[in-house]
Amino acid sequence: MIIDCHGHFTTAPKELRAYRNKQVEAFEAGKTDGFEALRDFSDEELFEGLKSSQMKLQSDRGIDLALFSPIAGMMGHHLGNEAMSRHWTRTCNDLIHRVTTAFPKNFAPVAQLPQSPGVRPDNCLEELEFRVKEQGFVGCNVNPDPAGGYWTDPPLTDDWWYPLWEKLVELDVPAMIHVSGSCNPNFHHTGAHYLCGDTTAFMQLLLSDLFKDFPTLRMVIPHGGGAVPFHWGRYRGLAQDMGRPPLKELLLKNVFFDTCVYHQPGVNLMSEVIPVENILFGSEMVGAVRGIDPETGFAFDDTKRYVDSLGIGDADKQKIFEDNARRVYPRLNAWIEQHAA
Amino acid sequence: MIIDCHGHFTTAPKELRAYRNKQVEAFEAGKTDGFEALRDFSDEELFEGLKSSQMKLQSDRGIDLALFSPIAGMMGHHLGNEAMSRHWTRTCNDLIHRVTTAFPKNFAPVAQLPQSPGVRPDNCLEELEFRVKEQGFVGCNVNPDPAGGYWTDPPLTDDWWYPLWEKLVELDVPAMIHVSGSCNPNFHHTGAHYLCGDTTAFMQLLLSDLFKDFPTLRMVIPHGGGAVPFHWGRYRGLAQDMGRPPLKELLLKNVFFDTCVYHQPGVNLMSEVIPVENILFGSEMVGAVRGIDPETGFAFDDTKRYVDSLGIGDADKQKIFEDNARRVYPRLNAWIEQHAA
Repeated sequence: MIIDCHGHFTTAPKELRAYRNKQVEAFEAGKTDGFEALRDFSDEELFEGLKSSQMKLQSDRGIDLALFSPIAGMMGHHLGNEAMSRHWTRTCNDLIHRVTTAFPKNFAPVAQLPQSPGVRPDNCLEELEFRVKEQGFVGCNVNPDPAGGYWTDPPLTDDWWYPLWEKLVELDVPAMIHVSGSCNPNFHHTGAHYLCGDTTAFMQLLLSDLFKDFPTLRMVIPHGGGAVPFHWGRYRGLAQDMGRPPLKELLLKNVFFDTCVYHQPGVNLMSEVIPVENILFGSEMVGAVRGIDPETGFAFDDTKRYVDSLGIGDADKQKIFEDNARRVYPRLNAWIEQHAA
Repeated sequence: MIIDCHGHFTTAPKELRAYRNKQVEAFEAGKTDGFEALRDFSDEELFEGLKSSQMKLQSDRGIDLALFSPIAGMMGHHLGNEAMSRHWTRTCNDLIHRVTTAFPKNFAPVAQLPQSPGVRPDNCLEELEFRVKEQGFVGCNVNPDPAGGYWTDPPLTDDWWYPLWEKLVELDVPAMIHVSGSCNPNFHHTGAHYLCGDTTAFMQLLLSDLFKDFPTLRMVIPHGGGAVPFHWGRYRGLAQDMGRPPLKELLLKNVFFDTCVYHQPGVNLMSEVIPVENILFGSEMVGAVRGIDPETGFAFDDTKRYVDSLGIGDADKQKIFEDNARRVYPRLNAWIEQHAA
């Protein structure tokens, strides 16, 4: 079975974006609560792009199931206030629930959280618990920078975040550490903010004893871990210079990387330096890069091809494609079992 | 000849740091101008660490010459005000002038600039011109985030920066795009802020037509370009999706990467995806990582070993070790010639 750990509902109806824009405009005009509901989409409207694009590509590329969350770039935690973030988050998670319930063999649900800059993540617990316990969500995305490129909240390792980590441990679901859009003109979202968020989160974890406090907490760092595998020597060296334990011991029971790296040399490097137990197949499809690589004739984001081409044994590929995802997201097993028939 | 394009005066006397701390304290106590001068160091004091560490390692590792600039992490443009930044910058550049004049075969001077957040970089032109024209400096470091991790100034491609780019072109010196310390608790300096700064700068350049306006402007992105080579497929794909020219045409006449990547697999990847003309040997020695890699038995930052081990021909190694540096920093030729004997 091929499990893609990194999918977003990027083929949602365009009207979703228009609705969100109106919500932001309403906020800017002074509306700080009582936001209007999204109108009901028909199944046809809601599933059109999904079927013609994401499900078609799954089938073409041989991907069985994707972990599926709201569009990361549109989480926009920096927009509006906490009430708006909560309202928007529920709207988005409702759509994920609907899609994954309609196509449970193709998609398993992963939640957005109602983060808001300056607001303690305690405000996320209710939404997270509801989605996991009532609707079978198997994980969530946590934005390490709800300020959208200004990084004004505390690092992930600060006790500011502890109630969220406690809840994740209690529910036995992992977090993908994934920033959203950037409102800082310095950071292009998919070309800078995403990769910087990944790199920054990893270094925060390296500096801290978070996983002593939460030995079973699991985090997935997307986009191949940002700059981390490329600079694996730097990180090993920094840890050593600081008298920290070796990375394997310090982090690698808890931190995982996806394969959203859009060329063969990058995925080769990952598999060379990162233990195979810590690599989860992911494609972010349909996402950051949509074109055909003229050097290969295949889509940049057809990352399955890169994993297929790795010079590793089938048992290791099995880990990357399926086993690691089931281990990191244990609730996925129940989801798959329940929807097998 | 082996030229290391990335060295900082990290072995300066400890008293320099104490002096700087006192300056920051004085500012915080209300002193906003008329900062006290650094006391004169004797040659013995000033060169002690340099001789016992940096020059010894150069000799041990077979490095002939390093481009030598003030300690990047201590530029601290976010500290104090413009007057303090100017004072501190002159102090640091004076030390670089003294060191490189004393050991011109080992070191060629590269300048720090008196940047300050919210201040247009016009304020850097006089210092830059003085160092280049009067003292033979061959390049400078430009901090893309003078706010030290809050990224509140405009992107490098904004016309805010144009007077500086004009001056660099006029003087025919390149800029290494190098952040300084971080005052944002989210960003560890060498483990996150540096690599994020590199990645962010590259993406800014990808989005802009800066090099149409300045066809001869040259920028070196240190630390192997942050996340860039690892995500070269992503960048090629993003450029293509946006209808931008291929990266080679768009950027690679103007943008260069050093080899400050502290393990063999990382340097292998660089040389696989980045044209050899765009790679400059650099070690950042003595710098970010000082220990011995237990996996190899050699120093993490002995990057010459990684380049030596690349599966490329001698002509290509010659480019990485010498020719590219002479081309990107043309004033280096005069420096070397002048101090040959």
